[in-house]
Amino acid sequence: MAGQSERTAETRERILSAAAVEFAEHGYAGASISAIAETSGTGKGLVQYHFRAKSDIAAAVIRSVFAVAPFANVLGETPSRGIDAIIGSIRGVGGAFRNDVRVRAAVRLVREYDQINIPLPMPYVGWIARIAGMLNEAADLGEVSPGLDSAREAYHLVANFYGVQEVSSRLTNRDDLMERIEEMMLRSLTVLGVSDVANRLRAGLNQEA
Amino acid sequence: MAGQSERTAETRERILSAAAVEFAEHGYAGASISAIAETSGTGKGLVQYHFRAKSDIAAAVIRSVFAVAPFANVLGETPSRGIDAIIGSIRGVGGAFRNDVRVRAAVRLVREYDQINIPLPMPYVGWIARIAGMLNEAADLGEVSPGLDSAREAYHLVANFYGVQEVSSRLTNRDDLMERIEEMMLRSLTVLGVSDVANRLRAGLNQEA
Repeated sequence: MAGQSERTAETRERILSAAAVEFAEHGYAGASISAIAETSGTGKGLVQYHFRAKSDIAAAVIRSVFAVAPFANVLGETPSRGIDAIIGSIRGVGGAFRNDVRVRAAVRLVREYDQINIPLPMPYVGWIARIAGMLNEAADLGEVSPGLDSAREAYHLVANFYGVQEVSSRLTNRDDLMERIEEMMLRSLTVLGVSDVANRLRAGLNQEA
Repeated sequence: MAGQSERTAETRERILSAAAVEFAEHGYAGASISAIAETSGTGKGLVQYHFRAKSDIAAAVIRSVFAVAPFANVLGETPSRGIDAIIGSIRGVGGAFRNDVRVRAAVRLVREYDQINIPLPMPYVGWIARIAGMLNEAADLGEVSPGLDSAREAYHLVANFYGVQEVSSRLTNRDDLMERIEEMMLRSLTVLGVSDVANRLRAGLNQEA
């Protein structure tokens, strides 16, 4: 039998999942706590027991996304290293932007941050740090040009990704996102001195398929 | 003496300038027509004579930015060509993001588009088309690798710029924007096969200084 604290955690998760759908669809201003209570099947009292205000729900949705894979870059059973890990991480985040409503909600809330009057987790920095670590691995493996500044290159990989997802979102509603991400990686990894990038990207795709 | 239609155009411009300050500072939802009327020194009646609703003012601010330099890439007296024109265009837009309140207003309004219930001009496409034209020039001048797809490369230049300005905006309030843009161009122009990019970027800066 589930204990009290387990049931409480499960209810909180159900509220966050319903909130993600509501925020992704209607944005922060348009989202209603009543709708979240109804969709999650909990009732308004229970929502207010877990979260004092709409802004707290928004912050919790963002935090839950920043805390987990694919940002954590765990690809199934065999975590990859260096450049393969970077490719996996970028593809994973791209796929999540398209397919994971909680990620879409977080991206929209981060974009609307100036409407939300509490401090939110800072975007970008966590992913930049993670990719910088993978670039150090790639340097140890001899996969990139010697002497690269990992933190700076990681910054530009994340910025390029963000730009591509934003333009793809506005121009095609993310229909061409995965294709644009492959084009972006072909260019960015070439700059890093990775050899035979096109084949490497293709090999990775065949492995995943 | 200024004629009636000249005075009318001048009033409209004054309203748009006041609106830009208001939108850049408070966003779409927070901007008030009373404040715009007061700052522009026109009065609410005259604002409403020119614009039916706040959404019409927002659309006019965005259109006025999309219509003019630096997006039009006129650099003083001597318009440059090919790669130099691209470098000038990207630096010009970067500088405008930092220094031109009307551009900052347009960028914020474009980001808040889903709160504005009328069709707005589509961002990115005009600049992508312009840069694609400059890339064709660069190909004719032999400045880039042969056989590049200009439209696709222009898409990625604009997407990279947008990503860099967004991350710079969130992490440093655009303090490091110009530096990040130079880093971005060093990487992007290298991918295009432009030779001796670092010196080329330096030479351009000395010329402007």
